[in-house]
Amino acid sequence: MIYKDRTKPIPERVEHLLGLMTLEEKAGQLVQPFGWQTYEHINGEIRLTEAFKKQIEQAGVGSLYGVLRADPWTGVTLESGLSPREGAEAVNTIQRYAIENSRLGIPILIGEECSHGHMAIGATVFPVPLSLGSTWNVDLYREMCRVVGRETRSQGGAVTYSPVLDVVRDPRWGRTEECFGEDAHLISEMAVASVEGLQGEKLDGEDSVAATLKHFVGYGSSEGGRNAGPVHMGRRELLEVDLLPFRKAVEAGAASIMPAYNEIDGVPCTTNQELLEDVLRNDWGFDGMVITDCGAIDMLASGHDVAADGRDAAIQAIRAGIDMEMSGEMFGKHLVEAVHAGQLEEEVLDRAVRRVLTLKFRLGLFESPYADPDRAEQVIGSAEHVELARKLAGEGIVLLKNEGVLPLAPGAGKIAVIGPNADVGYNQLGDYTSPQPRDKVTTVLGGIRTKLADTPEQVLYAPGCRIKGDSREGFEFALSTAEQADTVVMVVGGSSARDFGEGSIDLKTGASKVTGNSESDMDCGEGIDRLSLSLSGVQLELIQEIHKLGKPLVVVYINGRPIAEPWIDEHADAILEAWYPGQEGGHAVADILFGDVNPSGRLTVSIPKHVGQLPVYYNGKRSRGKRYLEADSQPRYPFGFGLSYTEFTYDKLSVSSDSIHKNEEVQVRVEVKNTGQRAGAEVVQLYVTDVASTVTRPGKELKGFRKVFLQPGETQTVEFTVGPEQLQYIGANYEPVVEPGEFQVHVGKHVNELLSANFIVRED
Amino acid sequence: MIYKDRTKPIPERVEHLLGLMTLEEKAGQLVQPFGWQTYEHINGEIRLTEAFKKQIEQAGVGSLYGVLRADPWTGVTLESGLSPREGAEAVNTIQRYAIENSRLGIPILIGEECSHGHMAIGATVFPVPLSLGSTWNVDLYREMCRVVGRETRSQGGAVTYSPVLDVVRDPRWGRTEECFGEDAHLISEMAVASVEGLQGEKLDGEDSVAATLKHFVGYGSSEGGRNAGPVHMGRRELLEVDLLPFRKAVEAGAASIMPAYNEIDGVPCTTNQELLEDVLRNDWGFDGMVITDCGAIDMLASGHDVAADGRDAAIQAIRAGIDMEMSGEMFGKHLVEAVHAGQLEEEVLDRAVRRVLTLKFRLGLFESPYADPDRAEQVIGSAEHVELARKLAGEGIVLLKNEGVLPLAPGAGKIAVIGPNADVGYNQLGDYTSPQPRDKVTTVLGGIRTKLADTPEQVLYAPGCRIKGDSREGFEFALSTAEQADTVVMVVGGSSARDFGEGSIDLKTGASKVTGNSESDMDCGEGIDRLSLSLSGVQLELIQEIHKLGKPLVVVYINGRPIAEPWIDEHADAILEAWYPGQEGGHAVADILFGDVNPSGRLTVSIPKHVGQLPVYYNGKRSRGKRYLEADSQPRYPFGFGLSYTEFTYDKLSVSSDSIHKNEEVQVRVEVKNTGQRAGAEVVQLYVTDVASTVTRPGKELKGFRKVFLQPGETQTVEFTVGPEQLQYIGANYEPVVEPGEFQVHVGKHVNELLSANFIVRED
Repeated sequence: MIYKDRTKPIPERVEHLLGLMTLEEKAGQLVQPFGWQTYEHINGEIRLTEAFKKQIEQAGVGSLYGVLRADPWTGVTLESGLSPREGAEAVNTIQRYAIENSRLGIPILIGEECSHGHMAIGATVFPVPLSLGSTWNVDLYREMCRVVGRETRSQGGAVTYSPVLDVVRDPRWGRTEECFGEDAHLISEMAVASVEGLQGEKLDGEDSVAATLKHFVGYGSSEGGRNAGPVHMGRRELLEVDLLPFRKAVEAGAASIMPAYNEIDGVPCTTNQELLEDVLRNDWGFDGMVITDCGAIDMLASGHDVAADGRDAAIQAIRAGIDMEMSGEMFGKHLVEAVHAGQLEEEVLDRAVRRVLTLKFRLGLFESPYADPDRAEQVIGSAEHVELARKLAGEGIVLLKNEGVLPLAPGAGKIAVIGPNADVGYNQLGDYTSPQPRDKVTTVLGGIRTKLADTPEQVLYAPGCRIKGDSREGFEFALSTAEQADTVVMVVGGSSARDFGEGSIDLKTGASKVTGNSESDMDCGEGIDRLSLSLSGVQLELIQEIHKLGKPLVVVYINGRPIAEPWIDEHADAILEAWYPGQEGGHAVADILFGDVNPSGRLTVSIPKHVGQLPVYYNGKRSRGKRYLEADSQPRYPFGFGLSYTEFTYDKLSVSSDSIHKNEEVQVRVEVKNTGQRAGAEVVQLYVTDVASTVTRPGKELKGFRKVFLQPGETQTVEFTVGPEQLQYIGANYEPVVEPGEFQVHVGKHVNELLSANFIVRED
Repeated sequence: MIYKDRTKPIPERVEHLLGLMTLEEKAGQLVQPFGWQTYEHINGEIRLTEAFKKQIEQAGVGSLYGVLRADPWTGVTLESGLSPREGAEAVNTIQRYAIENSRLGIPILIGEECSHGHMAIGATVFPVPLSLGSTWNVDLYREMCRVVGRETRSQGGAVTYSPVLDVVRDPRWGRTEECFGEDAHLISEMAVASVEGLQGEKLDGEDSVAATLKHFVGYGSSEGGRNAGPVHMGRRELLEVDLLPFRKAVEAGAASIMPAYNEIDGVPCTTNQELLEDVLRNDWGFDGMVITDCGAIDMLASGHDVAADGRDAAIQAIRAGIDMEMSGEMFGKHLVEAVHAGQLEEEVLDRAVRRVLTLKFRLGLFESPYADPDRAEQVIGSAEHVELARKLAGEGIVLLKNEGVLPLAPGAGKIAVIGPNADVGYNQLGDYTSPQPRDKVTTVLGGIRTKLADTPEQVLYAPGCRIKGDSREGFEFALSTAEQADTVVMVVGGSSARDFGEGSIDLKTGASKVTGNSESDMDCGEGIDRLSLSLSGVQLELIQEIHKLGKPLVVVYINGRPIAEPWIDEHADAILEAWYPGQEGGHAVADILFGDVNPSGRLTVSIPKHVGQLPVYYNGKRSRGKRYLEADSQPRYPFGFGLSYTEFTYDKLSVSSDSIHKNEEVQVRVEVKNTGQRAGAEVVQLYVTDVASTVTRPGKELKGFRKVFLQPGETQTVEFTVGPEQLQYIGANYEPVVEPGEFQVHVGKHVNELLSANFIVRED
């Protein structure tokens, strides 16, 4: 059997297998039922459902979505779910049945969510991508992706639905947290690292999973910040901004891609042949698999209304270039009949099947279809992985303000830790996470208590209020708690966690109420878009009440999108933006509060002063307008911004040549010195300005960055290469072009604090 | 001399004249200095400046901008400005000098602003276009345009920089008031009426002025609602939405067009050859003149930065299809030298000159270059024109809420008229108006006093506060005034008026303070974009304080963009949105308050609940998303909405055929009955839904409307024709297409209250 012969080239194996398949088996490869519905977990035993077994026996199943996903949507809880070892065993049970009970023994492609850790019980939960972006540490993120690949593959997951490469243009959008930020270059760097980390050197490695780039494309520019809303965007912007990270990730070898729910200028991405064929495959040479977003084909017939019915939608989608339908029923219901009815050529079906099979061969699933439960138990949530999660969380925290209060002095006295996010672990995990054992997640309260373990009486706690709702019943306890303290650390923000069944806190005492109010505190996450960027509920009011006590006040935000709260910006003594920092978030915040880690996170999204200023992304066109009646149009905290406990100075910016040919490069050098008293990391940022150009350009565009660690007094020369890659843009004819003329390079701490130099680009 | 021979065809005259011109004279035809700077008005006498005379003698001047414009920008005041007769004489002095002191005697094209009345002292000030749109009365608006043409031409104005055809998508934008609304079909109807009204049957008529369509194009979709900001829009949306009104107006014979300041997807409209040549001239057959917006060529070199310098900008602009530069200096400075230097072909210059000369010939300027001061004095501000202004203002007022309090009962007792817009005439004129004699403008207070002239003691007044600022010094007087009344009418809103030097009101007494605080109350108008849609200053607080008195409370908004004030929506007993209703606004409001006019205005912009919901225009795509965490994504008051003092019911919606060929039409009929007790007008609105389509479509699109006047008990059958024109859209290939399938027609009161019926469109 050629297709089972690992010595044969993959294309040959694919063609051979395809030739053996019935029409029904082919269609079976293009469907992806929900993984958690294939089995029941009863008395520690995995029982496959009859429906699943029947599906395997009849035509096979190409893929499963989320075999190990636990959350309120799947109905799988911490109690009913599987440990890492059990998860690996369950996947094997499923896989074994599929291989042994189907005519051709084709292994199933197990697809899992892994954006910031495998979405499974026990897996290490890293910070959300908005925090990962804020680290500006591409190497560390690559390492994380390797770890995520390892944890996932050890349980049999072979493809993941990450990275999310959307360019965030509107933070009202609930999925802002899932993205790296607003800059296409930064996202591109993370995108490449992601593919390298997840996929490793080869897809059939034991730590490798196939990356799925999403959401292709424009999803971060939805109208009104409303999830999956229509995108208004011209072709040039699309090519230059939103498509860039995808192109880079495809060039890095990404094996899979997912079209976005949204339409662009009237064409849903799911059926956008120009993007899926011309751009992706013809221009970029993508040779992987295209899988829809969940339910996206149904949406063609009801939502976008570009298809008359499900059959029409399925046919349009596969014709446009879709290879697999994520967890919908349209492919399964309609493809075979469409071929029988002469509405769809079998060749179109074959094209999709080829791509799915190719990925399975590349992943080595025919040779090694099974997970290793021992390895799963060993690697998942290992000390090393947890340490990495803490390091990433620390580097992703952005110090927005510090009036001398941080780091906390060793003899800072009593610390009151107050706020709805001070001790609710699941609130700091972000969206797309499964419930985790409570003792695995360290809250800020926990982190601070660990730091002060020798003097527990130094730490006081009160929840104060919930994230949402208008109950002030916890105010009194919070105020009396704060009154006893020398310093107040308020931990507020948002939540993207569906209720994990842990119950809520007793606002009047701070005690856990396991049987308490289970009303969700979600004010962020997928489908939770907001029309304001202020803190939800009565959190601001709580802070204002506490502030009246006159104690030094540190505000820690744990949340998933920029917060616009001018009062806090003015009145807090220090502000830390921690985003959703993952399971180690509490340790990471405490590390920074006490100065064990020097903050080095930098904003990758501009933080506005008011929702009415949107959009405020930094690299808008120069004609975008300077002010509103009530305020200027500038963000409160600019892109790239973030404070440190030490000082960095920039000096001696130089460009290696005053004038280069348009095919040449210059070296841009700058000396960065740590002039403060502490070691720390600085994110050295390079921006380029094309002074005049045929098509309009942003004022400044990020084209490079380097995170450098410097001891006190240490100086480092940082060098960037600036050449055609950095100087080009999508010109008048929608092709990349470097135009002769004057360019500026800017290097510095953030987009508004830079040294600048000029050089000329010549035509000849 | 052929060119002076009126019996010769215009093209022949143009070519002859062009052949006689020097390069300098040609370039002179393409410039447009500021009109008010050509003369001084001293002791009742007009003295031309030496600079202007020199310019005429050297190379001539193609056009002048705003000879009669008076406002803070020009520095011309009510006192220093010209009466209608003087204005006509001044224009004649200028024109005579130009004709008699230039080699070829080419008359000057006098360009004036006339969006809602000639922007000159004494001219009739009609409501702003947002109000005109709200009338949904195309015939009345056409009549207004005829009147505006008459008043303008009588003073020598020959071209006007209106209509504004921008599709408003973001009411933060300060120029919202200058637009008809958010719907391209409604704007198109007004656009055609505008061209018909302004230009008349022929351009050389004594009441005719050339219309200039602006701003071509996309200007109403600027990023963040910031004036002239970049536009993110795909080609299909541009063709289908923003370009539609321009196409219709071009088909109606518009003689002039103005590219917008903004860029679209990187290309400034001023140099967008695809739009100015391919679309406008080749596809649409436009044969008129293209004039830039003021300073738009400078902006190419500093702002858009697509030109290296002014010379480059001028060359790019004229090459792209610009014929005249509005009041900038780039054409005057650079074109001649550019030709001499071999950077510009004289043929490109000739093309522009031909178009300018052609317009002058068409306008009959060579035959009748002079204004008739007697006629100016007679027609400008005539009783008939003023009556029309009152009628339009009345029809443009939208009754948003009425809990039985309106119309005011004859024995309503004492009425307190309170608020910063109750008696400040210039605040109700809107942007692009010149100062007017105070007794010419009727405020709401004035209108109410006129109604109750027999019982003046029935009317009380207090200003309460200013529009902007936080002074509450007038609250006490306002509260004590309201306390004495039986009903309170609060007149609040915004202002687009630059200070006209009338001084402000004494907040503590209501007395005029002619020498008072001249701080501007502008919170709207060109360049005044807002990041909130709430009332400025302490107006809401004043209303809340007054509300506590428990009197019946009528709120009248006089303003230029949607106001989002949920508290007022909930607590006021009645709300009238009057926009800026022009000089007769006070009478018009009083007509409605007392029931002499039954409100018939309907919204042409959706009014949101919160700025964070934007955009909320009604005809978004079906995938646009239904809610935010805090609220749904629906507007507070929907498109087409407006109450009446009577009731209209819809019945017997019928479609003449269940099924038509795609080239055929159906008749859609509905019976509309006035089932209330008062005569009144209803705006019957027709919307179409394309149930499924190759490219996504809005849920509903306005495709027809009819304003019908019905006596109590009267029924009228309203009929609409629905055929290819109404069913087509810009399809997959960017061409108009009618796609077979199911369509729905909806007829009713506003977009959310409709009867519906279906029919099928067949391919064959």
